[in-house]
Formats: sequence, C-alpha cells, structure tokens
Amino acid sequence: MSAEHLALTQTLLLKIWVPWASGSSNQRRGSSRPQFTNSPTIIVMVGLPARGKTYISKKLTRYLNWIGVPTQDNQEAMKIHRACTSNALKDIANYFAKEQGQVAVFDATNTTQEKRGVIISFAKERGYKVFFIESICDDPEIIEANIMELKVSSPDYEDCDKEEALEDFLKRIECYKSTYVSLDEEKDRHLSYIKIFNVGSRYLVNRVQDHIQSRIVYYLMNIHVTPRSIYLSRHGESELNLLGRIGGDSSLSSQGKRYASALSTFIRNQAIKDLKVWTSHMKRTIQTAEALGVPYEQWKALNEIDAGVCEEMTYEEIQENYPEEFAIRDQDKYRYRYPKGESYEDMVHRLEPVIMELERQENVLVICHQAIMRCLLAYFLDKPADELPYLKCPLHTVLKLTPVAYGCKLESFYLNVKAVNTHRDKPTNVDVTRRPEEALQTVPEHV
Amino acid sequence: MSAEHLALTQTLLLKIWVPWASGSSNQRRGSSRPQFTNSPTIIVMVGLPARGKTYISKKLTRYLNWIGVPTQDNQEAMKIHRACTSNALKDIANYFAKEQGQVAVFDATNTTQEKRGVIISFAKERGYKVFFIESICDDPEIIEANIMELKVSSPDYEDCDKEEALEDFLKRIECYKSTYVSLDEEKDRHLSYIKIFNVGSRYLVNRVQDHIQSRIVYYLMNIHVTPRSIYLSRHGESELNLLGRIGGDSSLSSQGKRYASALSTFIRNQAIKDLKVWTSHMKRTIQTAEALGVPYEQWKALNEIDAGVCEEMTYEEIQENYPEEFAIRDQDKYRYRYPKGESYEDMVHRLEPVIMELERQENVLVICHQAIMRCLLAYFLDKPADELPYLKCPLHTVLKLTPVAYGCKLESFYLNVKAVNTHRDKPTNVDVTRRPEEALQTVPEHV
Repeated sequence: MSAEHLALTQTLLLKIWVPWASGSSNQRRGSSRPQFTNSPTIIVMVGLPARGKTYISKKLTRYLNWIGVPTQDNQEAMKIHRACTSNALKDIANYFAKEQGQVAVFDATNTTQEKRGVIISFAKERGYKVFFIESICDDPEIIEANIMELKVSSPDYEDCDKEEALEDFLKRIECYKSTYVSLDEEKDRHLSYIKIFNVGSRYLVNRVQDHIQSRIVYYLMNIHVTPRSIYLSRHGESELNLLGRIGGDSSLSSQGKRYASALSTFIRNQAIKDLKVWTSHMKRTIQTAEALGVPYEQWKALNEIDAGVCEEMTYEEIQENYPEEFAIRDQDKYRYRYPKGESYEDMVHRLEPVIMELERQENVLVICHQAIMRCLLAYFLDKPADELPYLKCPLHTVLKLTPVAYGCKLESFYLNVKAVNTHRDKPTNVDVTRRPEEALQTVPEHV
Repeated sequence: MSAEHLALTQTLLLKIWVPWASGSSNQRRGSSRPQFTNSPTIIVMVGLPARGKTYISKKLTRYLNWIGVPTQDNQEAMKIHRACTSNALKDIANYFAKEQGQVAVFDATNTTQEKRGVIISFAKERGYKVFFIESICDDPEIIEANIMELKVSSPDYEDCDKEEALEDFLKRIECYKSTYVSLDEEKDRHLSYIKIFNVGSRYLVNRVQDHIQSRIVYYLMNIHVTPRSIYLSRHGESELNLLGRIGGDSSLSSQGKRYASALSTFIRNQAIKDLKVWTSHMKRTIQTAEALGVPYEQWKALNEIDAGVCEEMTYEEIQENYPEEFAIRDQDKYRYRYPKGESYEDMVHRLEPVIMELERQENVLVICHQAIMRCLLAYFLDKPADELPYLKCPLHTVLKLTPVAYGCKLESFYLNVKAVNTHRDKPTNVDVTRRPEEALQTVPEHV
C-alpha cells in the first residue's frame, strides 16, 4: 500500500473523505449513512377490505421515504377491475430499475395463495426480496368504523344512503372471504411476513431477512390509531434570532418570553388530555417550557442543526467568510453538511428515535427549533427531501397535527406575539460564482 | 409567569439548563435522555431447560444496563431446590425499592400457569409491569447442542461421562414437560409477552405496553446465535495523537500509515468470511480502511466524542483554560459533558443503532476511536458505566470479540507498529481545588 493511496480529500457537499484520485465526485461512498438494502424489496399487503391495508401502506411508505429509503406505494384499486396484478408488478419492476426504488408496497387484498404465488415467482425471477404484511381483524366494530370513515364517505358512494352503502360494502367483503386464505404457519414457514391482529394487539413475525424488514416490523409495532394531536412549536424568539445569527444557545428575548407566556395560555385553553411536553437541551426551548409550569422531558436529539464553523454567524458573515460553502448549501440544502457540523439529512437520522416515540405516544407538545421542526413536519405531511429545508415554520406559531384517514390535518395558530422572521428562501442564483448581493437576496431583515 | 422564573443556569456536570432557583442541584431533570419507564418491570422467562433462557436473560440484562436502564438478572437456579419463587420475588422487590432498579429478569422455567399466576399477583399488588419471554424450541439438534455446550460442561457434571450426563439432563427436561403449559393465545390474551420459536425463526408478540417492552422486542428480534467475530480497532496513530491533542480530524502519522498496512496484512491472514468493514466519518479511520483495499461503510455515529470547546487541545491546555471543567470530568467521566460537546453517556445513546446492527451482522471490523471503542467494548464485556471511560484501548491493537456461552471471549493483537500512548488514568486528586501538577499527574507523554 503506497502512501499516495491514503491521501484523501473532502467532498464539498457532504464533507465525506474520499480517495484523492476520485476527486470530489459523489460515488456511492458519499452517503451519510450505511446502505443496508442491496436487492429491492416488495412489501405485499394481505387482508380483506377495510382491514387498514391502505392506512398501513401509506404510513409505512411515508416513513421509509423520510428515513431515506426510496419507497413507492403501488395501489391496485379494488374498484378498477382492469387493474391487474401483472400490471402492478410491471410498475414495481420499472420503479426498481429506472427510478432507483428500494422498496415497493403492493397494496391489494392478495388474499389467495395463487395470487401470492404469482408475486413470489415474479420476485424470485428478478432477485427481489418479498415481505408480507397481513392485517387480520375480527372485531366487527373496528371494521364498521373503518368502512364508514374511509369507504362510504368516498366519492364512489357520494349519492348513496350510508346504511345501504355499508351493506353493499359488507357484501363485497363476504365475496373475498370465501376465497381468503391466511398466511399459514406451516405451509408458509419459509416466507418472511408479519401478521397484525386486531390493529396491533398481537403480532406474528416470521423470518425477518434483513435490516430494512427489521425496521419495518419495529415501526409497525409502534404505531397506533388512538385519536390524538401533536403540537409543534419553536422556542420563543431568542436574543440571537434578533441579531439574525444562527445556532448558538442564547436566552429568550423579551418578545420570546411573552410568547412563552402566550403558549402557556394557549395550551391551557386547549385542555389537552395527558399532554407530554418535550424540549431540546437548549436554553431557549427550556425557558419556553418552564413558562408552562408543567413537567417536561429534554431530548438531546431535538437540538437545533449544528452549523459547525458557522455557529452564531449572520448569513452576511457566512457569505463573507465561506462564500463557496454558502452557495453549495443553496444548491442542495437537504444534503449539505456544514464544516464540522450537520446536514438536514443528519438531523433526520438523529430524529428517527424521536419520531418512533412520537408514534408511540398520544398528545405531545414538542418545543424545538426551526430546522428540527421542518424535519418533523416533513415526516407528518409527507414532504420530499428537496422541500423539507424550505418548509415555513415561523416563530411564535403553534402547528397542530391531527391524524385523519390517510394523512394529517394541519392547523396553524399564530399566538399574536411579534417576532423576527428567520426564514431564508432559496435565492435565484445558487452558483459559486454569484455576487454577494445575489447570495444575500433572500436573507430576512435583522438588526 | 414572572421573568425570574425563566432565568436558568447550566449544571457543571451535564450542561443541563435548570431553573436558577434550584441552583446546580441534579434532580431528575438532569437526565441526558427522557425517562420512559415509570413503574418497574419484571421480565419473566418461560421455557423448558436448555431453551436458551439464561442466554437471553444475560444478554438482555447486559443490553438494558448499557443503554442506561438499571437491570438485574435474578436467576432461580434449577439445581438449588431450596431457591423458591417467593424468595426470588422478594429479591426483585428489594432491587426495585432499594437500588433504583427499573427492570428485573426472573430467569427460571416458569412453565406452569400456577407459578406464573403467583408472579402476576405479586406484581399487581405492587404496581409492577410484567413481560413474559417464552422460548420454544422443538429442534432436537439445537437442544442437544445447547445441553452439551452449557450444561454438561458445567462443574455439576465434571466427573461424569458426557453421554450419561446428556441422558440425565434430557430426563430432567421430560419431568418439566409433563406440567409445561405454554402461554395461551386465548387464555393469556391480556398478558404482555413475546414467544420466540426455534431461536428466532418466528416470534409472537402480544400487547406490548410501553417503550421499554418495545425496545426489548426489537432487540430480541435482532440478535442471533450464528458463530462470528467482531474486530475492534482504532485508526492508525494520527498527527494530533503525536502532539497529545484530543479530537480534531487529522491525518495518519507515518507510524499510523504503517499500522494501516499491518492491519491489512493481519485481516488478510485471518481469512475472515464475508467481513464487513465500518469506519467513522473521520479522516483517520477512512485512511486506515483505505489501506485494506476492500469496500467499507461509513457511520457518522462512530465519530469520536465531541470535545466541544476542548477540541484539538492538549490536556495541559484544558487544565490551563478550564481547570474546573477538567476536575469535574475526572469526578464523573462517564456523565461529564464537554461545554458544547458530548459525554460518554451521549455516545452510548448515539451508538445504540450501531450495536443493534452489529447484533444483526456476522463478521465485522469496526475501525473507530478511543472513546467509541470503550463504549462498544463495555457493551460486549458487560462493563459498568464507571469503568467504561477507563477501559484500555491502545493504538495499533486489534481486539477480537467472539461470543461464547453467556459472554464474549476477548483476544488482543498488538500489530507491532509503535504508537504514542493516549490513555490518561484517573488522577488521585479530582477536587476542583487541586494544583495543576495534580491534574496533570496521569497525562501520557507527548511532544
């Protein structure tokens, strides 16, 4: 091994050390976390209609995309009879081959051995892995509630009598029941699957093959359907916010303290059952939580993005000291890592346990930071990585997220306490050759 | 809410913001991560002899202690007939009440409904949670291997013929079989449990109640018993190592490069099947891995402890600039957090996904850093938090860990390439009033 082989350079975007010979090119080495999935995986939903298959598909797809595993939800709509398994499978193969997909969720009833056999053969031929998720529910109340909420209220049944529509739907389910064969402990013992009984009261897990399947199982075992709301708020305005400086660990400004007090009133007025309050380890979130006068828990994982060498700088100073860094950040804000600091992608990674625990909990107020709130919001609202770093999370505004049907309802409450704007939009020119005034085009006003 | 209530001070040890009124006292607030367990949990093992109950108990206890959940393994030894359930339960109650225990693992066969009923009533009276782990195995080869490895080789059977001992043991199992009642899907549907079939080929999970049970289930689903070894190595000696400076992101010294080359030869000579190589994101680990000429994966979670304001300083400089910080670190090195940096406890938290993936994998070489290696080593060798930051992990030395029976075999390979010593022992005087020479008593030699 000659010494030259050990000469490394750091890539500008990800700050990853790569062999000098390969220059600054971004190969597969340039990932900020290990790649565990080698061959793509088809996740096959199994179950009668109204068993929450679509709910699980959509939620799982959103989660996997958020953690950085490219995933597509391939729904074979029950109502469109021409949609057939082979077309859905072709779409999946296409997604893996042409769009760098890693996971495809095949959302259909797949209630017969025959149909599942077709999928298994298809996957085997192409070297894909298969993981089945079967949802089994024998509680008539849950099924009826599911039908009323998701099916009968659909445009399909717009002009129908609700009771009649329910009847009709239950009949359709009966049709499927006659041919339904559940995954079998004996016959299907070589397959990888999870069976979910009655919305998560019991799980049977068979032959988990790899990291991604293990993550999926863990996720499915943590989600629940109990109604609740998650409240996201940034800390009150801080002294560094006032100065237009990023990062740091400063105290609340006087307006920030006013917000903490307003937040306390707002939360009291909402009269939320068993509310948990979470903060970061930073002073401004803890000061905000102290004003509520209730217990709270501190997560280091909720700390604001580490801006490394740019901590406590204004955008003007960053442009002056690191103009190239500033431009490269504007080119790919999600993946850009500050020198000796973090990227949004790094934050999503460290927020994963927070999301998992949020899924487990019921009502929670998370008092956090701008970049952190963007990551959390992207998870709940299914926003792609390129939009995530530009999501609008203004100071002194509570966002209330309530799960509904296949997504989240978003309500925004501005608590009427003035604060500086800290949102910097993507400027028009992101080239490293741009002039300072172009780089600073979108910097919000500050002292 | 008056403004004074929002005045916070930072604790010296953990750098946690607390209300000014409570001064620097360390209340329950002073935890570096949320406390999810409120009422203690008894984990009850269930299964015939030689089903791996003790293996699971010991491994799970080690994991829970390492992640910071105080856990005790209460073994009711089969051979000591006077040991009875009620004594074991008294010990558990004692552990919860007097030693701040959070989890106790009750390792016995617990194969009858009656015995499990006694435990359930005991727990109910005292407000403890109960989680059952049943290990079921009907593969005679696995059972026999288990008996031969763990039982027949025990001092109990020292002077016996191996075959005879096996016979004897199998007879003892038959005794239990006659009264064995497995956890029942119907009758025990209100209980929280996991059933593990044939060493993890299938799992049945029922009514997971909380965060800790969910973590236990995830852990149990990731461990395996396939023979393998884990190799831990620090990077080769770095330029900052030579100068006695901590942290930073420097290159390998010339001796460090020699080590990288020696490591390459060593690994080739070991002829390890399907070896995976992991590094941190830091230059010195990547340079070391590059010398191997094999693919490797980079984990940000493997980066060295962030020494915050002390990054790239010598110990002498830390003593000069932050004498109080330096003393407080010596008082509780595990929990001490550098200003704007991390503690060992923080690192254990961020290494948890690494440990989980190490459990999933087979042969792995982890090229990492001194403090990181101490955390990983403590997990595998079951070292308590106070010993962890003083574990000896010298440069240019590979540690090979091989799981055996209820623990890990450790082999150490010094690759015969000289390097500086970077280990600083705990000095005699750790008081903030100590003199500089007392603080610097144990600093290793450097340029």
